[in-house]
Amino acid sequence: MQRATNVTYQAHHVSRNKRGQVVGTRGGFRGCTVWLSGLSGAGKTTVSMALEEYLVCHGIPCYTLDGDNIRQGLNKNLGFSPEDREENIRRIAEVARLFADAGLVCIASFISPYSRVSFTGIDSEYEKPEAPELVLKTDSCSVNECIQQLIDLLQERDIVPVDASYEVKELYVQENKLDLAKADAETLPAVQIGKVDMQWVQVLAEGWATPLNGFMREREYLQCLHFDCLLDGGVINLSVPVVLPVSTADKDRLDGVTAIALVYEGRRVAILRNPEFYEHRKEERCARQWGTTCKDHPYIKMVMESGDWLVGGDLQVLDRICWNDGLDQYRLTPTELKQKFKEMNADAVFAFQLRNPVHNGHALLMQDTHKRLIERGYRRPVLLLHPLGGWTKDDDVPLPWRMKQHAAVLEEGVLNPDSTIVAIFPSPMMYAGPTEVQWHCRARMVAGANFYIVGRDPAGMPHPDTGKDLYEPTHGAKVLTMAPGLITLEIVPFKVAAYNKVKRAMDFYDPKNHQDYDFISGTRMRKMAREGENPPDGFMAPKAWAVLKEYYKSLEKA
Amino acid sequence: MQRATNVTYQAHHVSRNKRGQVVGTRGGFRGCTVWLSGLSGAGKTTVSMALEEYLVCHGIPCYTLDGDNIRQGLNKNLGFSPEDREENIRRIAEVARLFADAGLVCIASFISPYSRVSFTGIDSEYEKPEAPELVLKTDSCSVNECIQQLIDLLQERDIVPVDASYEVKELYVQENKLDLAKADAETLPAVQIGKVDMQWVQVLAEGWATPLNGFMREREYLQCLHFDCLLDGGVINLSVPVVLPVSTADKDRLDGVTAIALVYEGRRVAILRNPEFYEHRKEERCARQWGTTCKDHPYIKMVMESGDWLVGGDLQVLDRICWNDGLDQYRLTPTELKQKFKEMNADAVFAFQLRNPVHNGHALLMQDTHKRLIERGYRRPVLLLHPLGGWTKDDDVPLPWRMKQHAAVLEEGVLNPDSTIVAIFPSPMMYAGPTEVQWHCRARMVAGANFYIVGRDPAGMPHPDTGKDLYEPTHGAKVLTMAPGLITLEIVPFKVAAYNKVKRAMDFYDPKNHQDYDFISGTRMRKMAREGENPPDGFMAPKAWAVLKEYYKSLEKA
Repeated sequence: MQRATNVTYQAHHVSRNKRGQVVGTRGGFRGCTVWLSGLSGAGKTTVSMALEEYLVCHGIPCYTLDGDNIRQGLNKNLGFSPEDREENIRRIAEVARLFADAGLVCIASFISPYSRVSFTGIDSEYEKPEAPELVLKTDSCSVNECIQQLIDLLQERDIVPVDASYEVKELYVQENKLDLAKADAETLPAVQIGKVDMQWVQVLAEGWATPLNGFMREREYLQCLHFDCLLDGGVINLSVPVVLPVSTADKDRLDGVTAIALVYEGRRVAILRNPEFYEHRKEERCARQWGTTCKDHPYIKMVMESGDWLVGGDLQVLDRICWNDGLDQYRLTPTELKQKFKEMNADAVFAFQLRNPVHNGHALLMQDTHKRLIERGYRRPVLLLHPLGGWTKDDDVPLPWRMKQHAAVLEEGVLNPDSTIVAIFPSPMMYAGPTEVQWHCRARMVAGANFYIVGRDPAGMPHPDTGKDLYEPTHGAKVLTMAPGLITLEIVPFKVAAYNKVKRAMDFYDPKNHQDYDFISGTRMRKMAREGENPPDGFMAPKAWAVLKEYYKSLEKA
Repeated sequence: MQRATNVTYQAHHVSRNKRGQVVGTRGGFRGCTVWLSGLSGAGKTTVSMALEEYLVCHGIPCYTLDGDNIRQGLNKNLGFSPEDREENIRRIAEVARLFADAGLVCIASFISPYSRVSFTGIDSEYEKPEAPELVLKTDSCSVNECIQQLIDLLQERDIVPVDASYEVKELYVQENKLDLAKADAETLPAVQIGKVDMQWVQVLAEGWATPLNGFMREREYLQCLHFDCLLDGGVINLSVPVVLPVSTADKDRLDGVTAIALVYEGRRVAILRNPEFYEHRKEERCARQWGTTCKDHPYIKMVMESGDWLVGGDLQVLDRICWNDGLDQYRLTPTELKQKFKEMNADAVFAFQLRNPVHNGHALLMQDTHKRLIERGYRRPVLLLHPLGGWTKDDDVPLPWRMKQHAAVLEEGVLNPDSTIVAIFPSPMMYAGPTEVQWHCRARMVAGANFYIVGRDPAGMPHPDTGKDLYEPTHGAKVLTMAPGLITLEIVPFKVAAYNKVKRAMDFYDPKNHQDYDFISGTRMRKMAREGENPPDGFMAPKAWAVLKEYYKSLEKA
């Protein structure tokens, strides 16, 4: 029997999406007025221009009112008498109010009434604002620091949601409601979930997939698969399905219930409310997510073996998820990371995603980024060294060994411990190249990163059938730099780094001196480590290399 | 040797894309002021609200200045003296100028100085504007007609690019430069193209893929594959790669030349300038475009047999493309279609894409859409019946027979010839479901359609391996209603239509009376036609059915 198919997405959804796509119109963004007051030369123009630049780069429509566009226009019939000065300001304030109503941030930057040599020769006292929301010490702070203080203020006052989507949305049950939720969970029909599912539960619970409310419903799943973004309520990048497969038997049993308990290793760990079941069309999912359906791809293999249905819904996660492997201390949530960045007074956070040991080529990327940020005027750039800690394929170096290796790299001073946070990113690894690198990036964006380093062939692996790269090595960075919905951070794409035999150090590849370089592949590195050899001096910090050799030795004993 | 990979997409591309994503900020949209003048009760508020609605739904940021937000704010210190009235207007005009500078369309809607019972009791003559750009006859025109006239004016004056991307960009060489171009083409190295490639040349030449300048370069190709949109200079939907595969031999021969002549059936038909070669990673392309890599899918088969490289560039097409099959008269370009709509005084154009004969279920969708548009206040809705005329798979009914069948449908009055344009859409058919339906829709958007009808399983086919639907039948409409970059038209999604045995007519399926319906599949229909049977009365217009029987008979003779 042909299934009756009622299309449920009505036409009005179109206009709501459209309104979300038209920034700055009534009903869209919330506007406000930022009024800069100060003496001539205080830096108001510099700050207003920098603020406008920041806002534009962060997707917030804005407009500056200043002498240039006010004095000869709206206020051309005003002079400099006290009454006219007052009327000047009053009119500007009313215009600013209109702009705010239209949904823009209106920046008002006007020379104060006091100046050493005024236009009319009339001196007036500069009346400092009585209760300024913020005082910017432009004589002692950098422009970036001033802007950061301004933005912090705007976010605190919830006057300008940078983008409501980017406020971390955690899905843990609040402490005071936990007992009730646990009792409720005991009454609910249950479904067993596996370790990788549980890692996704942690990802969702901690808010890495903000603004998802739980495992994806069909609508979110289709947006993700087709557009790499969530579209409702504003465009935000989300390129990988965050889904929970269930068997047909479970689906038949649970279809129609209002809540399901998720059970991991015998414990009820979460509640999925208002569940929605939809087909897990695995071939299509894998094709769109990975650009292949090769059954020997390690994650695709898992997908093909998983349930024929997906269930989405609103997730409530009960206890804080821990793995009790001695590494939970590194598993900082986005909220905890943002807090740490604040404590460190970071004015720029640059993130580095990795699933491999750190060699000096990686370190070069990170050191160079730090250098460039200093050159740009940042005073306290902080590196988030963020190894992925969820599921990885069999032949990747396991997390505990990688953490040991990273510690050695910091110990050897290749990276600076004072300006580096090492934390674990709880997501499973999917080996989905250009699709996955967007996920890696957006997750660090949610956690407060301002810059994201991307190199050659991110999240790639050899094609299981052909042995060649599954993805074109430049595509990850190319796709990432163009990806929509990553508004609040800047991508830092890198050229290839390789071992320079002359300099005896890792170096950015210069084709003019091609003969000076040795491209040490992961395969060759692993071979050397397995055979107890040492790589060329400068390839990797010695203590870090020692950890690798130890790891490969331990494999042989096993 | 490991290929040196220099990532060429620099960080500044990010901020340019970001600016494109932040609508309405300085450097983005062009703003303007729309000043509505008229007596009290003339309909200014109605028009301004409708204009604002239209602009928002078309991606144009706007803001209305009216008595509500001006009289008690900026102009609260003004009365009704002649001088104050003048200052009132002057200030509003200056504010409108600021909004226009900020990139918004500012709508100013103010009660005229003359009214039968004025607020202050002071009578003033209503001074009609001396030279209005537009006079809206609100007493005799509908709101939609008024808005349409307004929008036409704004587009004509190029004051508001509705979206510069949506102006049709044809790639034909101008008449006066044609001889020179042909002479140039004779000197260029050439590459042979096939029939399907030639169909894509026609698609590009006529502007269906606006704003593409030619076959996709790698950047556009990646945006298309990953995001279903082009992103540079504003988001516009383009979900299928428009690419030209070439062999490795051709690539080796042509890499580095500044221009290539494309040769079809021995004639140089186009020039491709500044060509860019990049890998045709066929497995990945097919996976992302079709959600499968099944080698028995008819288009995928062609892709797999095509060249291992893609070449993009700026296309200049020489002579107007004709197929000389007696159907060229129907192959109206987007520009010609828009012109026809204008000549017909259409105030709404709704498009219907098809690759099959028209049965009364299709007709029901079209008749119902017409009805709904009339109910919404449109006075002259026009149907664009737009069969696809490019490559189709072997077992689809060929174009000439379909055109004959469509003509019979109109002749029988099932559709109204006075308000229907039948034209041919020159694109090849790709059978790529939810990915392709966006292409079908955006192409009609470029051609001036305001509404696009989508039904069950658009652009679908059975999976060659399993026989089941390749795509979930509701996904096409779901994905289309959510797709970004289709700002200037409204999707009209439909529920299933089926043959109602009681009414002896096609009808929208009502599950409550499930037993009344007969779902006549394409397969069953073809069987009946092949065997010279007639379907139930009301399934298809009799003369149209006769054409089908004739077609299937002709197959047997062959």
